[in-house]
Amino acid sequence: MSSSSLKQSQVITCKEAAVAWGSGQPLVMEEVEVSPPQPMEIRVKVVATSLCRTDITAWESQNIFPRIFGHEASGIVESVGQGVTEFSEGDHVLTVFTGECFTCRQCVSGKSNICQVLGLERRGLMHSDQKTRFFIKGKPVYHYCAVSSFSEYIVVHSGCAVKVNSDVPLDKICLLSCGVAAGLGAAWNVADISKGSTVVIFGLGTVGLSVAQGAKLRGASRVIGVDTNPEKIVKASGFGITEFFNPNDCSEPIQQVIKRVTDGGADYSFECIGDTGMITTALQSCCDGWGIAVTLGVPKVKPEVSAHYGTFLSGRTLKGSLFGGWRPKSDLPSLVNMYIEKKIQIDEYITHNLAFGDINKAFDLMKEGKCLRCVIHM
Amino acid sequence: MSSSSLKQSQVITCKEAAVAWGSGQPLVMEEVEVSPPQPMEIRVKVVATSLCRTDITAWESQNIFPRIFGHEASGIVESVGQGVTEFSEGDHVLTVFTGECFTCRQCVSGKSNICQVLGLERRGLMHSDQKTRFFIKGKPVYHYCAVSSFSEYIVVHSGCAVKVNSDVPLDKICLLSCGVAAGLGAAWNVADISKGSTVVIFGLGTVGLSVAQGAKLRGASRVIGVDTNPEKIVKASGFGITEFFNPNDCSEPIQQVIKRVTDGGADYSFECIGDTGMITTALQSCCDGWGIAVTLGVPKVKPEVSAHYGTFLSGRTLKGSLFGGWRPKSDLPSLVNMYIEKKIQIDEYITHNLAFGDINKAFDLMKEGKCLRCVIHM
Repeated sequence: MSSSSLKQSQVITCKEAAVAWGSGQPLVMEEVEVSPPQPMEIRVKVVATSLCRTDITAWESQNIFPRIFGHEASGIVESVGQGVTEFSEGDHVLTVFTGECFTCRQCVSGKSNICQVLGLERRGLMHSDQKTRFFIKGKPVYHYCAVSSFSEYIVVHSGCAVKVNSDVPLDKICLLSCGVAAGLGAAWNVADISKGSTVVIFGLGTVGLSVAQGAKLRGASRVIGVDTNPEKIVKASGFGITEFFNPNDCSEPIQQVIKRVTDGGADYSFECIGDTGMITTALQSCCDGWGIAVTLGVPKVKPEVSAHYGTFLSGRTLKGSLFGGWRPKSDLPSLVNMYIEKKIQIDEYITHNLAFGDINKAFDLMKEGKCLRCVIHM
Repeated sequence: MSSSSLKQSQVITCKEAAVAWGSGQPLVMEEVEVSPPQPMEIRVKVVATSLCRTDITAWESQNIFPRIFGHEASGIVESVGQGVTEFSEGDHVLTVFTGECFTCRQCVSGKSNICQVLGLERRGLMHSDQKTRFFIKGKPVYHYCAVSSFSEYIVVHSGCAVKVNSDVPLDKICLLSCGVAAGLGAAWNVADISKGSTVVIFGLGTVGLSVAQGAKLRGASRVIGVDTNPEKIVKASGFGITEFFNPNDCSEPIQQVIKRVTDGGADYSFECIGDTGMITTALQSCCDGWGIAVTLGVPKVKPEVSAHYGTFLSGRTLKGSLFGGWRPKSDLPSLVNMYIEKKIQIDEYITHNLAFGDINKAFDLMKEGKCLRCVIHM
C-alpha cells in the first residue's frame, strides 16, 4: 500500500473549523473530523479563503445547521481518492462551487457551465453520495456549495477543483474562485459588452466592481455605478466606474435617473446585489431595442422576478449569469494567466487580510458594507 | 394647383368602415369621413386586411371607443400629404403598426425596430398631432396602432408604410404586415435558431406556425407545438411542427413534459399566445445553460411576467420580440422577395377569404379558434 493510499484512509482531525450552529449566529471554532476523500474526490489543505456575500445570504436565510460555510478558496492537495488521476498530493488548486464533469449534456455542449452532475449543491451534502465529510464527535456537519472552505482541511469533488501553477499567490487568486471571475465573466461571456457602450451596475461590491473592470477592459465609454453605500465610490473609480449614483440622494426612481442620463437607457445593466426588485430596476434601466440586463445575485428574500411584459416586447433581454459563464476547468487557467500577465486586477479588491480566528470580523465588515474582499489566511 | 394636391385637400366619405362602438360588441358598418393626409402622411385605399389576434385582444380589453381596428393590411396610395416624396398615387403598400423614422436613436442604431417616433401607438391617435383622421358626423373615431385597416380608406404616416412591387398579390402579402413576419423574425432575428436545434412553440396560430416555418427553414431538428386546441394540429405539420402536445391531455404540467421529452429542455421556446403565465412556462421549458425563451404575444390580462430567479441564474435568457425584430422599410422588401421566389409560405396561412361585410364572421372564427388567417377583401 502506497503512502498516498494510506493517507487516503485516515480521518484528519482539524483543530480549527469555523462552524455555524444557527442562522445569523457567530461562527464557533470547533475541532472537526474530516473524512478521507471518497472516489473521485480530493482532500485539500485550505491556504486562503475569502468571504463572499452569498455565504452571508445562506447563513442568514437557510436552515441547514450545523454547517461550514465558505466557497471562495485556494489550497494544496493533501490526498486524493480512488480514481483521481488529475491531481496529486501537493498540487495547488482553486475550489469552485460549480464543477465540470465533461460528460453531461451541458458540459459536452462546450457552451455552458451549468454542469448537471456537479452543479450548485444547495442541500449541504456531497454530490456523489449525498453525505457529509465533516463530523463533530461523530455527528455530521453540513457543507456549503460542496466546498466549505472555512476549515483547515476540506474534501471536494475532483471536478470542483482547478489546478493552478504553484508560483501564483494562492492568497490572491482565491478571488477567482468566485467573485472576481463572476463579474468579469458576466461582462465578457454573458453580456459580451461591446466597445463604446454604456453600462450600469447595481451594487458595487467585488462582483459589481469586477463587472466594471470587465466593462473597462472591453472599452465601454460609460460605466455607471449605483449603490446606496456612499463608501463604495472610494474604490469604484479604480475599477472603471465613470459615474456614481446613490438612489437615496435621487429625487426620482433610479431607473428614471439612468434613463434620463443615458438618453433612454444603458446598453447593458447588471444586478449585483441579490434583490429581485433590483433585477426589475436593472431591466427598466437598459434601453429599448437591444438593452440587456444580466442578473448575478442570489436573493435572500422574494425569489420571484417580475416585470411588465412590455419591458421585454420593446426589445429587452434578461439573462442570468452563474459564475460568469466560466467553465471552471476549461476557462479558469486562462484567467489565472491574465492575472500573472497583469492584464486583470485582483489584489485591489482585497481590503482586509485576517487570521482565521478573526473570521467573524469578516462577517461583520461584509454586513456593514465596509469591505470588498476580506481574505482569511488559514 | 396639381390634381394631387387638390385631392389631398378633400375629405373622403367611406361608405363602409367597420366601427367598434364598445368592448366586445360586433363591429357596425358606418359611413365615415376620412381626413386628407397631413404632412408626411399618406391616404391609402385598403385592398386586403387580415384579422390578427391582437385586434381582438384590444377590442376585448381596451376602453377606447368608437374605434376602427385592423393593422395587418395592404393597399394602394390614393394621395400623399405635404413633404412626402417616397410615395406617389398608385403605389402598392403594406401598412405597419410600428414605423421607421430613420432619425431616432433606435433607427439610427441599425439594430432595432423599436422606433421612438413611430412606435406602437396605443392610444388610438396619430403620431404627428395626437388627433384622429376618422370622423362620424364630425365626431372623432379612434385609430388602432395608427393603421385602422377596417375601413375602405385610411390615413397612415409615411413612415408606417412600405412600398412593394405592384405585381405581388396584395391579398396574400398583407400577412407580412404583421403575423407571418412576426413569427419568421422571432425565429431568425430574435432567437437566431441554429441548425439541428430543438424548438418548442406555445400557441399554434399564424404567429406560432410562422415561428415553426422559420425554425424549419433554419434546419431545426425538432419543432414541438403546444396548443389546447386539437384542431391546430391539422395545419401544423405543413409548417414544420414535428411533434404536438395538448396540455389538456397531459397528466403533468406541460413544462415537465417538454423537459422530459427533450432531456432537460428545448434550445428555444416561444410564447405565441399572449399569456404572461405561459411566458413563465416557456422559460421553464427551455434548457439550462443556453435556453432562450422568446415572448411575442400581447397579454389581455395580468401584464406582469414572473419567474423564479433561479430560472435565469441557471443560464436561461428571456427576450421579447416585436414584429420579429424587422425594421419595416429596411427589411420587409426582402421578405416580399422571398415570397416571390417561393422561399417562404404565406398562402397556406389563409384559411378563409371573406367579403368586408362579413368581418364579424372573421372575429367569430378567430375567437372560436377555427381559423389561421381570415383575409378580408375590401
